Amino acid sequence: MSLSTQPYKGTRDFYPDDMRTRKWMFAKWRKVVESFGYEEYDGPILEPLELYTAKTSEEIVNDQSFNFEDRGGRRVVMRPEMTPTVSRMVAGRRQELGYPLRLYSIPNCFRYERQQRGRLREFWQLNVDLFGLEGIEADVENIQIADALLKEFGANENQYEIRVNSRKYMNSIYDELELSDEEKKTITGLIDKKAKIDSTEFEKIFREKLGEEKATKLLKVLNNNDAIPESIGQLIGSLEKHGVKNVTFEPSIARGFEYYTDIVFEVFDKTPENNRSMFGGGRYDGLVGEFGVEPVPTVGFGMGDVTFQNFLESNKLLPEQTSETDVYIIVIGDVLTEAQKVAQALREKGVNVAVDISGRKTDKQITNANKKNISYKVFVGSEEVSSQLYSVDGQNQKLSLDQIVSLIKSSK
Amino acid sequence: MSLSTQPYKGTRDFYPDDMRTRKWMFAKWRKVVESFGYEEYDGPILEPLELYTAKTSEEIVNDQSFNFEDRGGRRVVMRPEMTPTVSRMVAGRRQELGYPLRLYSIPNCFRYERQQRGRLREFWQLNVDLFGLEGIEADVENIQIADALLKEFGANENQYEIRVNSRKYMNSIYDELELSDEEKKTITGLIDKKAKIDSTEFEKIFREKLGEEKATKLLKVLNNNDAIPESIGQLIGSLEKHGVKNVTFEPSIARGFEYYTDIVFEVFDKTPENNRSMFGGGRYDGLVGEFGVEPVPTVGFGMGDVTFQNFLESNKLLPEQTSETDVYIIVIGDVLTEAQKVAQALREKGVNVAVDISGRKTDKQITNANKKNISYKVFVGSEEVSSQLYSVDGQNQKLSLDQIVSLIKSSK
Repeated sequence: MSLSTQPYKGTRDFYPDDMRTRKWMFAKWRKVVESFGYEEYDGPILEPLELYTAKTSEEIVNDQSFNFEDRGGRRVVMRPEMTPTVSRMVAGRRQELGYPLRLYSIPNCFRYERQQRGRLREFWQLNVDLFGLEGIEADVENIQIADALLKEFGANENQYEIRVNSRKYMNSIYDELELSDEEKKTITGLIDKKAKIDSTEFEKIFREKLGEEKATKLLKVLNNNDAIPESIGQLIGSLEKHGVKNVTFEPSIARGFEYYTDIVFEVFDKTPENNRSMFGGGRYDGLVGEFGVEPVPTVGFGMGDVTFQNFLESNKLLPEQTSETDVYIIVIGDVLTEAQKVAQALREKGVNVAVDISGRKTDKQITNANKKNISYKVFVGSEEVSSQLYSVDGQNQKLSLDQIVSLIKSSK
Repeated sequence: MSLSTQPYKGTRDFYPDDMRTRKWMFAKWRKVVESFGYEEYDGPILEPLELYTAKTSEEIVNDQSFNFEDRGGRRVVMRPEMTPTVSRMVAGRRQELGYPLRLYSIPNCFRYERQQRGRLREFWQLNVDLFGLEGIEADVENIQIADALLKEFGANENQYEIRVNSRKYMNSIYDELELSDEEKKTITGLIDKKAKIDSTEFEKIFREKLGEEKATKLLKVLNNNDAIPESIGQLIGSLEKHGVKNVTFEPSIARGFEYYTDIVFEVFDKTPENNRSMFGGGRYDGLVGEFGVEPVPTVGFGMGDVTFQNFLESNKLLPEQTSETDVYIIVIGDVLTEAQKVAQALREKGVNVAVDISGRKTDKQITNANKKNISYKVFVGSEEVSSQLYSVDGQNQKLSLDQIVSLIKSSK
């Protein structure tokens, strides 16, 4: 029996055309976050299990993580998210690192998910974190970058919306209702799932968990977007000054992770057929301190590649990419050595060149170049070798090497 | 008890300075292989176990791989190498892909290794593969690229050497000695370990395995670099024409992986204190066919980041990198809003700018910029805001925004 060519369920093969889209997307992510002074880091895919226990969403660790025992009997996890790792790294050099500390990463993360749109077992996630600032300026910058990312891809404010809330504000409401810590956790988790549950069903579960009176009061809070808490008002005002205008207060924004401590936000896709949360983040001041060092206030967000790419596709913001290879040399007759010299000369001028070294007929070589979406085919036969002028598809005249180089550089 | 800040054994944290070195190295890898017309692909980190069983080195799969059962009872492996994955992908689109097909990738791979220099549990590996060509031209290109990679980093031919052998040639010797398939496998594995074993010990094991007569004959072959097989002679001659001169025939080059079918090569570090194999590859014509499609002849090699970086370090070919951030804005007094505008104006001209939004004293802000190895500090106070001219460290005069942009672009 022969082996299957299918990738493992929930993972993707990136053939060159898929990979070019991914590289194009990641390059833009990098451009935006680096323009704000963020520096790239990376951490291991494997982390000890204890790094996640009770630090991240319990659902993710218990039900959705790939974890196993290594050959030395140690329980390890394939990272389901990056926040515990970056917190560990910052704690590890708590003193040496300077604050404000701006870090970003584009790790791949792993969750054992049933397949559904926007959810895969292996996905990439842009992580942007700002360490060392307690004030609202940090939250402003965090959301400003999320907004700049969308604008970089050409998205406009009719296509997405930023919804903000505050865990501190919600906790003050929970305290008024005298909820226990356990109840707070349950309710936060439930609110986080609100958009995915039918609203009658949601209210029913809510009343079961909290009792009639508390449930009614809390539902009233959740449905009131007008009672804007002071910190949120300040945040929205400051973001407006930075040109970020589509920000609204939304008390039902909860975020699944338990580590958030204050302002949280989510970016929503507003296209009617796709209306849902794309990504989000917020303030988590407690994580670095879990490693036995003085706590570091932190804000950050994570943005997954699958959801983001879906957004770009449905809004027609995803252009087709051409090959990394600029030139495909078609070799006509017994001139391979000379064709290789032409290729090498072009390479030395910064041009990416593939030579067809197959010795096949010209039409087969042309077919191959076309399959690869390579911009220019350059023909090398004995005539070209002696004249040092080359036929290039789409050009009326034969060109010298320097002319080919100019043609390519001008088309980039 | 607080959590440990140490990464999982055998893995690395890449803080921004480590990450910059990695990015610099990978960017050069990409530049060289793309200049030869190779296109980037990627595959999943998790693969089904059966993809590796009997296809790769048994030692790696049985003793050194991270494999476990997923929640659905499926046995999965964290890829210990990339060759089975790329073979699977090519087989999956056997008809659609055009040949010659040039592919590269820089995946991270996982092996459960005891810690030793150059060996880690998580490492990155440049994989370069050329599909669809039976002729020696493919082997020539494969080795030419390996050589171009070293030269790109400034290595010279006194620092490394390329040693080649042929599995076909070795098999013809084994056939003369009437070795069984099992013996061939054992002997190939043993020869692959030759450099790591004391030579008296090596000969002793050899005689035990093969008996006195066969062992003597084979040892003679292994120690004779002058009886160059025809294909190797052709290869060396052709490489010389391409300017690759430090190539020698070495019959004791075996390569650990079982899938090689003909020419194999290894690149050796020649620095006396570090003398050892850095990386290698060769021809493997059988792997794609394992997936039930018509076979595709293939050559390729893999180059690990750890060994390569060690080579660069010991040969002083690893320069220090500056930050991705070009400018750090020091905010003096109550001008944060204006400083943010300066930052935004610079960003729009392609400059990466971090603003110190901490509100701390000037000297603390300066210390932070210095810690991050950022090239330029720009000072913004009320005077600068009104004159629109800014102090820049290392400059005698105050500069306009356009002058700052020119300064930065000219220093890149």
